[in-house]
Amino acid sequence: MPSDPGQPRAPALVVLHGPNLDRLGSREPEIYGTLRLSEVDAAIEAEARALGISVTCRQSNHEGQLIEWVHEADDHADGLVVNPAGYTHTSVALADALAALRIPAVEVHLSNLYARNSMRHTSLTGAHCAGVVMGLGLDGYLLAIRYLSRRLAAEAP
Amino acid sequence: MPSDPGQPRAPALVVLHGPNLDRLGSREPEIYGTLRLSEVDAAIEAEARALGISVTCRQSNHEGQLIEWVHEADDHADGLVVNPAGYTHTSVALADALAALRIPAVEVHLSNLYARNSMRHTSLTGAHCAGVVMGLGLDGYLLAIRYLSRRLAAEAP
Amino acid sequence: MPSDPGQPRAPALVVLHGPNLDRLGSREPEIYGTLRLSEVDAAIEAEARALGISVTCRQSNHEGQLIEWVHEADDHADGLVVNPAGYTHTSVALADALAALRIPAVEVHLSNLYARNSMRHTSLTGAHCAGVVMGLGLDGYLLAIRYLSRRLAAEAP
Amino acid sequence: MPSDPGQPRAPALVVLHGPNLDRLGSREPEIYGTLRLSEVDAAIEAEARALGISVTCRQSNHEGQLIEWVHEADDHADGLVVNPAGYTHTSVALADALAALRIPAVEVHLSNLYARNSMRHTSLTGAHCAGVVMGLGLDGYLLAIRYLSRRLAAEAP
Amino acid sequence: MPSDPGQPRAPALVVLHGPNLDRLGSREPEIYGTLRLSEVDAAIEAEARALGISVTCRQSNHEGQLIEWVHEADDHADGLVVNPAGYTHTSVALADALAALRIPAVEVHLSNLYARNSMRHTSLTGAHCAGVVMGLGLDGYLLAIRYLSRRLAAEAP
Amino acid sequence: MPSDPGQPRAPALVVLHGPNLDRLGSREPEIYGTLRLSEVDAAIEAEARALGISVTCRQSNHEGQLIEWVHEADDHADGLVVNPAGYTHTSVALADALAALRIPAVEVHLSNLYARNSMRHTSLTGAHCAGVVMGLGLDGYLLAIRYLSRRLAAEAP
Amino acid sequence: MPSDPGQPRAPALVVLHGPNLDRLGSREPEIYGTLRLSEVDAAIEAEARALGISVTCRQSNHEGQLIEWVHEADDHADGLVVNPAGYTHTSVALADALAALRIPAVEVHLSNLYARNSMRHTSLTGAHCAGVVMGLGLDGYLLAIRYLSRRLAAEAP
Amino acid sequence: MPSDPGQPRAPALVVLHGPNLDRLGSREPEIYGTLRLSEVDAAIEAEARALGISVTCRQSNHEGQLIEWVHEADDHADGLVVNPAGYTHTSVALADALAALRIPAVEVHLSNLYARNSMRHTSLTGAHCAGVVMGLGLDGYLLAIRYLSRRLAAEAP
Amino acid sequence: MPSDPGQPRAPALVVLHGPNLDRLGSREPEIYGTLRLSEVDAAIEAEARALGISVTCRQSNHEGQLIEWVHEADDHADGLVVNPAGYTHTSVALADALAALRIPAVEVHLSNLYARNSMRHTSLTGAHCAGVVMGLGLDGYLLAIRYLSRRLAAEAP
Amino acid sequence: MPSDPGQPRAPALVVLHGPNLDRLGSREPEIYGTLRLSEVDAAIEAEARALGISVTCRQSNHEGQLIEWVHEADDHADGLVVNPAGYTHTSVALADALAALRIPAVEVHLSNLYARNSMRHTSLTGAHCAGVVMGLGLDGYLLAIRYLSRRLAAEAP
Amino acid sequence: MPSDPGQPRAPALVVLHGPNLDRLGSREPEIYGTLRLSEVDAAIEAEARALGISVTCRQSNHEGQLIEWVHEADDHADGLVVNPAGYTHTSVALADALAALRIPAVEVHLSNLYARNSMRHTSLTGAHCAGVVMGLGLDGYLLAIRYLSRRLAAEAP
Amino acid sequence: MPSDPGQPRAPALVVLHGPNLDRLGSREPEIYGTLRLSEVDAAIEAEARALGISVTCRQSNHEGQLIEWVHEADDHADGLVVNPAGYTHTSVALADALAALRIPAVEVHLSNLYARNSMRHTSLTGAHCAGVVMGLGLDGYLLAIRYLSRRLAAEAP
Repeated sequence: MPSDPGQPRAPALVVLHGPNLDRLGSREPEIYGTLRLSEVDAAIEAEARALGISVTCRQSNHEGQLIEWVHEADDHADGLVVNPAGYTHTSVALADALAALRIPAVEVHLSNLYARNSMRHTSLTGAHCAGVVMGLGLDGYLLAIRYLSRRLAAEAP
Repeated sequence: MPSDPGQPRAPALVVLHGPNLDRLGSREPEIYGTLRLSEVDAAIEAEARALGISVTCRQSNHEGQLIEWVHEADDHADGLVVNPAGYTHTSVALADALAALRIPAVEVHLSNLYARNSMRHTSLTGAHCAGVVMGLGLDGYLLAIRYLSRRLAAEAP
Repeated sequence: MPSDPGQPRAPALVVLHGPNLDRLGSREPEIYGTLRLSEVDAAIEAEARALGISVTCRQSNHEGQLIEWVHEADDHADGLVVNPAGYTHTSVALADALAALRIPAVEVHLSNLYARNSMRHTSLTGAHCAGVVMGLGLDGYLLAIRYLSRRLAAEAP
Repeated sequence: MPSDPGQPRAPALVVLHGPNLDRLGSREPEIYGTLRLSEVDAAIEAEARALGISVTCRQSNHEGQLIEWVHEADDHADGLVVNPAGYTHTSVALADALAALRIPAVEVHLSNLYARNSMRHTSLTGAHCAGVVMGLGLDGYLLAIRYLSRRLAAEAP
Repeated sequence: MPSDPGQPRAPALVVLHGPNLDRLGSREPEIYGTLRLSEVDAAIEAEARALGISVTCRQSNHEGQLIEWVHEADDHADGLVVNPAGYTHTSVALADALAALRIPAVEVHLSNLYARNSMRHTSLTGAHCAGVVMGLGLDGYLLAIRYLSRRLAAEAP
Repeated sequence: MPSDPGQPRAPALVVLHGPNLDRLGSREPEIYGTLRLSEVDAAIEAEARALGISVTCRQSNHEGQLIEWVHEADDHADGLVVNPAGYTHTSVALADALAALRIPAVEVHLSNLYARNSMRHTSLTGAHCAGVVMGLGLDGYLLAIRYLSRRLAAEAP
Repeated sequence: MPSDPGQPRAPALVVLHGPNLDRLGSREPEIYGTLRLSEVDAAIEAEARALGISVTCRQSNHEGQLIEWVHEADDHADGLVVNPAGYTHTSVALADALAALRIPAVEVHLSNLYARNSMRHTSLTGAHCAGVVMGLGLDGYLLAIRYLSRRLAAEAP
Repeated sequence: MPSDPGQPRAPALVVLHGPNLDRLGSREPEIYGTLRLSEVDAAIEAEARALGISVTCRQSNHEGQLIEWVHEADDHADGLVVNPAGYTHTSVALADALAALRIPAVEVHLSNLYARNSMRHTSLTGAHCAGVVMGLGLDGYLLAIRYLSRRLAAEAP
Repeated sequence: MPSDPGQPRAPALVVLHGPNLDRLGSREPEIYGTLRLSEVDAAIEAEARALGISVTCRQSNHEGQLIEWVHEADDHADGLVVNPAGYTHTSVALADALAALRIPAVEVHLSNLYARNSMRHTSLTGAHCAGVVMGLGLDGYLLAIRYLSRRLAAEAP
Repeated sequence: MPSDPGQPRAPALVVLHGPNLDRLGSREPEIYGTLRLSEVDAAIEAEARALGISVTCRQSNHEGQLIEWVHEADDHADGLVVNPAGYTHTSVALADALAALRIPAVEVHLSNLYARNSMRHTSLTGAHCAGVVMGLGLDGYLLAIRYLSRRLAAEAP
Repeated sequence: MPSDPGQPRAPALVVLHGPNLDRLGSREPEIYGTLRLSEVDAAIEAEARALGISVTCRQSNHEGQLIEWVHEADDHADGLVVNPAGYTHTSVALADALAALRIPAVEVHLSNLYARNSMRHTSLTGAHCAGVVMGLGLDGYLLAIRYLSRRLAAEAP
Repeated sequence: MPSDPGQPRAPALVVLHGPNLDRLGSREPEIYGTLRLSEVDAAIEAEARALGISVTCRQSNHEGQLIEWVHEADDHADGLVVNPAGYTHTSVALADALAALRIPAVEVHLSNLYARNSMRHTSLTGAHCAGVVMGLGLDGYLLAIRYLSRRLAAEAP
């Protein structure tokens, strides 16, 4: 969303969680931690509130849905945080959606991709974001929010 | 540095900058930004101060020196932030040093490795850190400091 | 579905058919046989009935839908048979869903993957199932049902 | 759609646009041109009308939806033009749908795949079409329509 | 063995176990299970008896011996079950023997090849069988026997 | 040939056929169709005439000759259609000639490269043309002519 | 040359020597032997005479010329012996010419390709001949002549 | 066998046939021809007799046996013809045996390796023979015999 | 052989020599040295005697035989030294036999694998031994014996 | 040309320019500089004159012609400078011609191959020259001339 | 060192020799020639003096030291000649230092990298120099000096 | 150090430990054992003393320092034992230093490289030593010392 200089309002971020993240907390805690997705989203919202920005969190297992939410974020939000999960390594289509963004995006992974098998070392999607934060668990989302908050403030007129 | 439960003191972090980072700011600002390394270190120190932790920043172009500073950090500090720069992709020796750490480490890159050529997509060293932050410029260091601060506080007795 | 020892009931299986399998029978019979999907499902249900277990058969061309049905099966069923078809070789997201299953799963392919082109020799999804049955046509499903039936009986309290 | 020799009617084509093509014109015009998708479709329809054939244009970001539209085209149309966009290089499932078509299909890409990065040089889907037209922008669609029109006329009884 | 339509007799199967399977049960039970080979063969024979077919089980560590038993099976039996173990991934010669078979063959592996290291993901020999069953332990053999029994009955005059 | 705005004349195209295309029609009609090259050229010339442009068709089996004709076309024509046949996949030298062209070029292949063996999936030469048309037989040439005709008209002063 | 059953005449063979073979004997005798090309041709002609067949030997360093001589041989001769030398490993165009031959061809190499560096282990051209003889020096040509002589006699009406 | 200059006797050759060649003639005649191995050996013996040399033909499916026969040939014969069949592409051990030979060896393949799948394009064993003859069927053996006969005569004192 | 604590006896080792090692000394001394295998075995036996352990040396060219001797050693000996020669790089079956050993094994190679061609740089079998000694000629065997002697003494009750 | 010690004369060099270099100066000056080939040759001739040696400059787009000029240079000149342009990376035939040279050769490239795409990093032809000079523009030719001049003087009797 | 237009002085070059070059002359003269490094430096200094420029020669086996000397050269010299020896193929860090240079650099290798094993065909460092001179021994350094001298003179105000 | 035949003195060996080995014993004992480096060196020295030779042990984390100690050993010692640790797989520079040695060297690794991840299977440095000992822990050093002692004694005048 191209910022409208005449309208002072809180920056709006979108956080997108990709496939299987709706199962967070109940599965494989040794890799993904023990928090449920609702708890992750609550922490993200608290952090955003503390930083004076609004945030919307969404999850989908559908590649097409994630693509469309990226399109929507570009039209209606100021920044994007995305954890494409399994689509990170396989989705040229989602990467194309990110490549066309006018707003800044940060990719977040709960686990450290480089510490997992080699198929997970690459990121098709991360190549089209400003940066990537991986391996820092829930904190990764909070740090990404903080980064976007600082950057949007710095770029604000 | 294994925390000594009987001695209340501020957590101590070490930040290691790898090869060519001493030239920061004067070269290739389109990739690495315009800040000089002294300014980066000042910002890191300010962030640490604000978080109530101590930090020591060091830079070397020598792989062996960086390895020895990793060894020292393991003995005398509570957390490590490392930007191995060009050694990220080639140094099994530095990766081995990180693999033996008992304290948590975060790898930071100023630029987004996935947006550069494919030789830079892998990270031998990052595989042995808790996580990696890339592409967020100076903010990457500050976010890493913040992450370690939270984690050390959470793990403190 | 974690078995509830206090409730004696027939084991419940889910059979998931992936993309293009809704076109079965009318296309490329030299590879996939001449039965329509409804006939395959009827045979599966007959086999299940004969073995004293219940079975639900579903087909989708949507990766996200298949992922969600895997999640559902984990919550509500005792075993899973999955033919991911084209997603076998490309879907890290579906493989992640299978990796998190608490119930046993068997992957089935109508054709022999090793006898087709090399792109089809690997199975991202099969790596996270108990086993794989390929090349035995409709019988592959029936044998997978039989295997799960025996295994669930053996593991029953 | 197997032509029905007893029923003289205009040949019917389907044009399928894949992921992100709904954003055409507003993004990356240096790669994809400046026309919006509605303008592309209008031009396709005008060309079809001039050639005396009917055409239906559809767009989806969902792999599963595209697969189902391919199935439908096989049952109800005489020819297919498909631009799978990002799915071109990754979707075995969509390629399988095209491989089972009884009607002729042409793959179209707005940009020249060979002039982009090597990940885009291959086409899983194009291997199962009659041919591929790439790099000719909007004209690629019009030429594909013209080709199918000629071919259907030549094959007509 | 080409079936002789004038001679009603029970179908005869051969089961071939490859290298190291004579050590089954005493070694690496976490991969191969705890049954000894004699127990596996007894279970196979019981299953065959129940299905009204005869079966001969043989084991060899010698590639050449296995090749010759494949030749013999082709002349004297109606179906083959083969677990080539370590030769699965390396023996073009054994694959050539299977490729020349006139009787149907099924390859069986106790463990799931796709869940082991990548060297074991391919099967030179499986490419020349009707199908492959992997990861289902002893049940894999029984299911293969059952498949061949059904198929031979269906093909019988 | 840089168009001379002061001189109204019909646009001039060159069509170059590469190695073995002089044998067209008499060999492998299942891949290349049944028309002889003279018939292809006649159809091309008819299409050009209908579009009000002039065309010159040439064939050579010599890489060096094709390179020189590309040079000549750049000096004396307004557009180029080239079917480099076997040189498509191997000739860096011909690709270099095309890369230096000031006039638009379209690469044409009678067969669908993606449907043939993997050695033929790449196109060194096509990377330096505006686009590529493959698999549409003789029509491919006619569509390329039509594309260049439209483009030259659109770019004309 | 399709044999004309009504015309009894001696079979005619063509022997084609590829690039650098005109320098034979004076260079690198440890690889290619000490005979000059004229001596090789004399021996070939003597062998042919003894076998009652005619032979024409030609050498060219030009890929295009060799392609055209293959075309000519197809129209005017009964068999072909070809040593493509350096083009063996690089010429898809020459391989295409051989693939379209109606007469039998044998590829000959003076040296043993498998004993040289790996770049020389493959043969694009040999894949489209009846067979390949390598490493037997001048004798390779004579054996190829003898093979074609026997085969043409066996196939003669 | 190092020739003994004082003892005039006929040169002795050994012909070794590798795995599955004992099944020749009854299987896959489209690849390997219709002759049985006994007929091949009879033709070899007739050719040898005509050339005034003795020959011994042996077949084994056992890699170890073939290695030992290579050792024996080195001690007791003057030349070797070997068709390692499936071991051609996989046996470093057999290749090592051939590498240590003091007598000349020729590798023969009934089919053209380059015209089959890429796994069969390499020859570990052929790299250690004087040369390789492939694709010429039975004639390949006869030509190899003839080559060795000429070479032994030329090298005789 | 699991040591029997109640029975004081000298540790028993087995040394297995793989394919072609029976030809040692007479062939390629520049790679393998000039000692014959009997001399190697005599030196091994002398070293063992000096160390107070018993040793049995065996050689086979048969992969299956070597596998069976590994099985026997596991049942009847206390340690194993194995030089798999050509099977080092190709035998998954022999590697599987070593992987199941309960007694320690050391792999020995007369030559330095890393100094030979790249096909010989890997060791499938060595991965399942305690360690590998290469390039030290006969001494390699003696050092392996000495290592096992020390280790068995250290582990003895 | 083997130097004739009895005949004092100026050393003679040949400079060969490969495909597309006849278009130098008018195309892609950002890669190849702005000089035309005639100007390059004039500068080469001036440098040679200053060094007291004679030089002949030739350009061809034909691989076969370049091969023949290499042959001629070997017979009639004392040194060779060659810029194989696009053939550098693809021509085994030209590399073979250079490998057989008795006179010293230097390969020259106007641009720095390592700074271009990876396909251009290798040089088949350069491997058979004394050395390679790349990226130094016209100066590369002059330095190569100077090197050969010094070397021929040093080697002169 | 950015040239200071107001200060007429001789251009200053730096020559850096990488690891093991301090052992030059005493080791492997067949690859590296017989001159000692002091003699090489003396020849370089003589050439520089003759060209009216100053030169400083330095050698280090330490990657970090070489990086720092590159940094210094950028601040204090007008041109750089670098022979990174073994670091050529492995040092991303040294390549990064060269990439940031504002002064022109030329990479020199005594031996011809393309004539050595394939690991040495690439140059990470050369990609960031103006050009590379390889295989011309000591002359390579002298020609690089001469090139930089000409270029600095041409670029001088 | 070239032995000086006129001076009877004990052979002198150098043992070089590479990066991170100074941390031995306190880290990752499951891979590297529990001994500290000082204990390893004491054991080495005791073994040397027992064998009547002198030994000097040194450790460095600096590639350049290790290279220089290799140079020194060549001038002043009679044999070298080197454990390059992480540099084993990445240092062409250290491998070059070893390649130039006139004294024998043995590479030692505490762990079995083949049992670790594939990046550690190769050894650039080991290729230039007489041999490699891996996986035998501290004993590996002692056996290397013993080997060099025997070899130096055998080669002594």
